[in-house]
Amino acid sequence: MKYCFGVDLGGTTVKLGLFEENGTVVDKWEIVTNTKNEGEAILPDISKTISDKMEERKIDKADVVGVGMGVPAPVTAEGTVKGSANLGWKHKEVKKELEALLGFEVSVGNDANVAALGEMWKGGGSGEKNMIMVTLGTGVGGGIIFDGQIAIGNNGAGGEIGHICVNYEETEICGCGNRGCLEQYASATGIVRLAKRKLATETRTTKLVKETVTAKDVFDSVKEGDLVAREVAEEFGHYLGYALANICTLMDPAVIVIGGGVSKAGDILLEFVEKAFQERVFFANKNVKFALAKLGNDAGIYGAAKMILED
Amino acid sequence: MKYCFGVDLGGTTVKLGLFEENGTVVDKWEIVTNTKNEGEAILPDISKTISDKMEERKIDKADVVGVGMGVPAPVTAEGTVKGSANLGWKHKEVKKELEALLGFEVSVGNDANVAALGEMWKGGGSGEKNMIMVTLGTGVGGGIIFDGQIAIGNNGAGGEIGHICVNYEETEICGCGNRGCLEQYASATGIVRLAKRKLATETRTTKLVKETVTAKDVFDSVKEGDLVAREVAEEFGHYLGYALANICTLMDPAVIVIGGGVSKAGDILLEFVEKAFQERVFFANKNVKFALAKLGNDAGIYGAAKMILED
Repeated sequence: MKYCFGVDLGGTTVKLGLFEENGTVVDKWEIVTNTKNEGEAILPDISKTISDKMEERKIDKADVVGVGMGVPAPVTAEGTVKGSANLGWKHKEVKKELEALLGFEVSVGNDANVAALGEMWKGGGSGEKNMIMVTLGTGVGGGIIFDGQIAIGNNGAGGEIGHICVNYEETEICGCGNRGCLEQYASATGIVRLAKRKLATETRTTKLVKETVTAKDVFDSVKEGDLVAREVAEEFGHYLGYALANICTLMDPAVIVIGGGVSKAGDILLEFVEKAFQERVFFANKNVKFALAKLGNDAGIYGAAKMILED
Repeated sequence: MKYCFGVDLGGTTVKLGLFEENGTVVDKWEIVTNTKNEGEAILPDISKTISDKMEERKIDKADVVGVGMGVPAPVTAEGTVKGSANLGWKHKEVKKELEALLGFEVSVGNDANVAALGEMWKGGGSGEKNMIMVTLGTGVGGGIIFDGQIAIGNNGAGGEIGHICVNYEETEICGCGNRGCLEQYASATGIVRLAKRKLATETRTTKLVKETVTAKDVFDSVKEGDLVAREVAEEFGHYLGYALANICTLMDPAVIVIGGGVSKAGDILLEFVEKAFQERVFFANKNVKFALAKLGNDAGIYGAAKMILED
């Protein structure tokens, strides 16, 4: 039996998984991310916890295919990071350094892209090779998979779906410095923004409360028949559905997987997005499937494992 | 010395090139495309002209790497076409049939995508591995190259840049059935449309004549200092530049190559596009280079040759 490790490196914890080659998870655990001194301990800590796990489980080095890892930063095809605010890293040759520590092969990718690969392998996109993943959380993240491979791009910044412009008339500024980014309408905070804008002038009765409204409130209220909430969800659906239609024109995926906290609203969310999507989709992409993400917080370790199994 | 053939199959002629492995063109020629009886003679004709060329040049079968070919239709990763109006083909296993005829390996792709690969190999994108190509002709075509590979997609319809929506307020219908496609503003006919819309209400003096204006007239007049023409070119630049900024957010290319008849306007066209692009580009993509296509009508045979050399 051959094994590999999948690592999801975040700003506060490092999630790790020990996998069999077929994708069975043998073990999952976490360690704390030590960001002190420009994060100098992070890779040694990861190396040590993997070595400890191998000893604990009596796994021979010869039976380890390697380690895949997702990191919260753009990562070049060579496994180099130019800098990560979350980790304290400046320029770092992550793949090279971790390989030197561990003595076996390491594959490194951007965390959102790696999570997308995980969902394609064992989650919402299972069985497909061409996939778009969009993660609706505090922000909007994404990953594009072409023929089974992550679309990395020239700077490791491929798949930044949250920052395509969907509204050139927007006056408020996005975190990235532009105006009208998808993230401003389709993230949890974006949906709140849409709801507050609507509630500012709304005269009909609604369960939504302007001061405290959340993305969850919006979809919960839709389920209870609230018309104002439904109109907010429709607006969200238009922005995201139209954007995804454009992305499909470029990518021609088999499946679009929607994940992140907002996607916990479930199938009702897909309904709003798919309806708008179908109004605008290019004819060649009409049969694109929609699916909810299935792996939750484990998508990162699955995708990381898949990365090294592919290499 | 090893050889390969690059074939650019069009609706009226088939362009062919005999290449050395390093990309040197040894010979170029054309045959007529016989579309009679659902194009049944097309592949036998191509097989025959290649065999004839090998005989003429005394090239041994063992010295041929294979044949690459671009066809005017979406092509799946398996080299299958679902149908091509230009050729008369219905469902056709192009790769398989041509391999059976020739007895060596064949690689098949969509013509616009294949031309993009050609420009990356020996044209405007030379030296790069991540590239967007946009072809401004009667329509707007495109190709996306990720890490040296054509982005084919699930149905072979990847890279349909001309049909991303750039104006949700558009009332006129595009050839694809949608409204507001990039093609409606950035193709030769799209630029004419922009010019005619402007000239319908324009009171200033201009060299542009509403009834006869062409895309070439617009850029020629810009070069002569015509302000009305300049405003048309700016509008074109905004639509294309903004669209390319969005595409870069998804793709993170190193270079954008602009080709097709409209691109003969030269560097002045790039100026309008780049200016608008820089207004909207995501910060990670600010250093994307712009280049004009260099291979003209030969891009297809170059890209086709490159396809088979890669496989």
